[in-house]
Amino acid sequence: MLEKIKQKKTKKADAAEKLREMQEELINLANEAKAKKLPVIITIDGWSAAGKGSQIAKLIKYLDPRFYDVEAIRSPNDQERRKPWMHRFWMRLPKAGDMLILDGSWYRDSVNALMFGEIDKDEYKRRIKDINTFERQLTDDGTLLIKFFLHITEDEQKARIDRLFASEITRWRVSESDLNNNANYDKFLRRYDKTLERTNTDYAPWYPVAANDRLTARFDILSTVSSCIKSACEAKDKGEKYVPEVRFETIECKPVNFEIVKTKKLKDIKMDKALDDEEYGRKLEKYQNRLFELQNICYQRKIPVIIAYEGWDAGGKGGNIKRVASALDPRGCEVKPIAAPEPSELARHYLWRFWTRLENDGHFTIFDRTWYGRVMVEPIEGITPIERVNMAYTEINEFERQLTDWGAVIIKFWINIDKDEQYRRFKERENTPSKQWKITDEDWRNREKWDQYEEAVDRMVELTSTEFAPWTIIEGNDKKYARVKALKTICRMIEQRII
Amino acid sequence: MLEKIKQKKTKKADAAEKLREMQEELINLANEAKAKKLPVIITIDGWSAAGKGSQIAKLIKYLDPRFYDVEAIRSPNDQERRKPWMHRFWMRLPKAGDMLILDGSWYRDSVNALMFGEIDKDEYKRRIKDINTFERQLTDDGTLLIKFFLHITEDEQKARIDRLFASEITRWRVSESDLNNNANYDKFLRRYDKTLERTNTDYAPWYPVAANDRLTARFDILSTVSSCIKSACEAKDKGEKYVPEVRFETIECKPVNFEIVKTKKLKDIKMDKALDDEEYGRKLEKYQNRLFELQNICYQRKIPVIIAYEGWDAGGKGGNIKRVASALDPRGCEVKPIAAPEPSELARHYLWRFWTRLENDGHFTIFDRTWYGRVMVEPIEGITPIERVNMAYTEINEFERQLTDWGAVIIKFWINIDKDEQYRRFKERENTPSKQWKITDEDWRNREKWDQYEEAVDRMVELTSTEFAPWTIIEGNDKKYARVKALKTICRMIEQRII
Repeated sequence: MLEKIKQKKTKKADAAEKLREMQEELINLANEAKAKKLPVIITIDGWSAAGKGSQIAKLIKYLDPRFYDVEAIRSPNDQERRKPWMHRFWMRLPKAGDMLILDGSWYRDSVNALMFGEIDKDEYKRRIKDINTFERQLTDDGTLLIKFFLHITEDEQKARIDRLFASEITRWRVSESDLNNNANYDKFLRRYDKTLERTNTDYAPWYPVAANDRLTARFDILSTVSSCIKSACEAKDKGEKYVPEVRFETIECKPVNFEIVKTKKLKDIKMDKALDDEEYGRKLEKYQNRLFELQNICYQRKIPVIIAYEGWDAGGKGGNIKRVASALDPRGCEVKPIAAPEPSELARHYLWRFWTRLENDGHFTIFDRTWYGRVMVEPIEGITPIERVNMAYTEINEFERQLTDWGAVIIKFWINIDKDEQYRRFKERENTPSKQWKITDEDWRNREKWDQYEEAVDRMVELTSTEFAPWTIIEGNDKKYARVKALKTICRMIEQRII
Repeated sequence: MLEKIKQKKTKKADAAEKLREMQEELINLANEAKAKKLPVIITIDGWSAAGKGSQIAKLIKYLDPRFYDVEAIRSPNDQERRKPWMHRFWMRLPKAGDMLILDGSWYRDSVNALMFGEIDKDEYKRRIKDINTFERQLTDDGTLLIKFFLHITEDEQKARIDRLFASEITRWRVSESDLNNNANYDKFLRRYDKTLERTNTDYAPWYPVAANDRLTARFDILSTVSSCIKSACEAKDKGEKYVPEVRFETIECKPVNFEIVKTKKLKDIKMDKALDDEEYGRKLEKYQNRLFELQNICYQRKIPVIIAYEGWDAGGKGGNIKRVASALDPRGCEVKPIAAPEPSELARHYLWRFWTRLENDGHFTIFDRTWYGRVMVEPIEGITPIERVNMAYTEINEFERQLTDWGAVIIKFWINIDKDEQYRRFKERENTPSKQWKITDEDWRNREKWDQYEEAVDRMVELTSTEFAPWTIIEGNDKKYARVKALKTICRMIEQRII
């Protein structure tokens, strides 16, 4: 792709008037994007000394600084290395109506890591896949993503580095990595080119910029940003999906169909499983002790364990979680109750609030309700349009795949009870003063939608029981049986991972 | 204090029944605290090998894991070292109704840092002051803080460490620091004792625990936690402030009265200052260039710069901030617009959302509206009771003092315009289509309360113009003058700091 970029020179006199107009236009468009609550991400990648920083400075000069954020992406720090590699980009997602401008991005992270031998080719390829997934998820969610690559020729790069190096004031700005970038120009060129080609998608195409001449580059960036925001706002007005302008042939990039494990429908689950007190006491102790041992191993090997609890109201999630958590060293275990999202969460991709809740590797994270709210409560309550809900099955599989790639063991429980048992427990709660806070009108309302929920759960289990993150249905009419089964399942799944 | 702690032995048979009762009681009390939205922090400090971890495990065993969080406090990581030392504790504050249990706390951080030579005595003393301030701010805000110190004798500690060391399975758990703690028992004893005495306040007294015998310790911790939660809930029911039970003589600990710089009332400000276009252009360029140079110095010296903007509606904050931000390298500068707090923010101390927004040292953070909302909009709109508002002046001075101790330059602007000028600007906004979004009914309503606001601003400026964080009133009727004055003030204040 890069060999097709023609360097050219723009005369100052020719551009001045046009630039002023364009700046004026950009200010208005930025206000419009703000008002329409469009989230915008602009990434500026490119060669060392290509002028990324100064182009960003020019771009933002006339924008309202309250509504954009500029961040420089450098190598991940120690904290960031204990999370999935994409975590630090998810963390930074702008709110709807805000603009994030990145000096370097997930691309810099991946190409440099490969070129400097920090990751191997397989890992690099996995990252390219993660990037395509990430960009698709964001753009499907309505984020406007504009990707620039500042391209300069080998000679121009050498001249710029020499110039920086010649002055004592600027010499410190020339790093080892810059020199390396120029010394291995051809090698980097091939790698950049491959990377750009493999990530040039219909939904997030590249805009490579001829950057030998700064004014030409500035002109290109400014007009591209304006035209993208303009089209995206127009599409939003019409209620259509924004289709970006494509400048180079794109690759076909469909979501991977993950292999799905065969599952049963809820109605086919035998619900008569139970344990007597003696067996319960014995097995509880056995698996709690085993779990504690396994936690130590996970901690030492830095394996993250993620346990996701879903289930019917009054299914016994709380008590079940308690038996798991109390077996663990609490300093390495966090329980995250998931309630309705806050405004700052609603203003971002729905997976954002789960990405930001991930603990460090080696830790256990237990979610009391999860990202699966997206495909249960949200469509049933009409919170989310059905097209977005339908995309969520794939998005969730991808999310869990990325967690697995990070090294996580993912254990997902649906705590199942039948309708009679739920009725009995609701009544018991109503009649027990210390439990009354646990039962609300909403529980009764949800119960009326039992069939709708059952259908949604069947569909969820059917579509998201991947090999790497299968569902375990727990027969929950007997709480003792349910607790032991959860503990045993957690132990087994961790054991499978650590052998 | 510690020499008064008598070690004793509790027989298992004597305690079993009582323990069961107490556990039952704690479960009920924890539910009550949750329902009453009481935030609870329990810190467990003490000698190495005193059994902090296992006491915590026992304490939480019967609690609902969704509503507590246990964290182990170790040495700060690289990220944490780039923030004020108290930052990582503020970050962790529990929501109202949640419980935070800390294995080690701000005490461990300070005593160890002193004993291992990471900080000197002056810094240690400053930290003790910060701790007393922190604990007072939290308890004034209604947090229940329960501080335990697990005390064991020198022989007992030696025996425990020897026992751990003797087994291959547990040997790895004995650290250098543990051995050091025992080898220098007397030295540590004196330091712990001094630390406990200096932080044994009426509002956050110590509960030292005789921990030679684990059962005795468990008994003491359990009954203390229960009785504290019980009293705190009772106080809350009565609308009274909770007064903790004090076991050792407390120190007198009043907030410091910081020296206040003399300031003018708004009505005495001459509002006729203005600049013509030529002078504006020249000075704007001059101070913007200077600011950019100063940013480089701050970055290299890791000096944080915090700029706080307050002012009348339509005072011109936005345009002013833009002139400052556009002079700076955007990668080292963040603008934080402060809107109404979200639910997670309302559920914590009001300063929490400002602590959590602090950037790394070396960075500029510009707040568009600030923590001063507490003493302006909150009392006028009746959001916060006047007693809490009156405490805020001191709390804010203390907050800013801690930022200054961290090394920050704090610059606070009140952008002043007169009532006629505001009217003119409101009208102009209404009549300019591209500016209409900037004017709302709320602006007109606020304008009706002009006198109330003026009084609140005068009081705020009078009470919070400390030497280390003075207010600068900017005459804002002429926007050009206001921008240049802001830039010039920022440059001057940074220059004073770096000489």
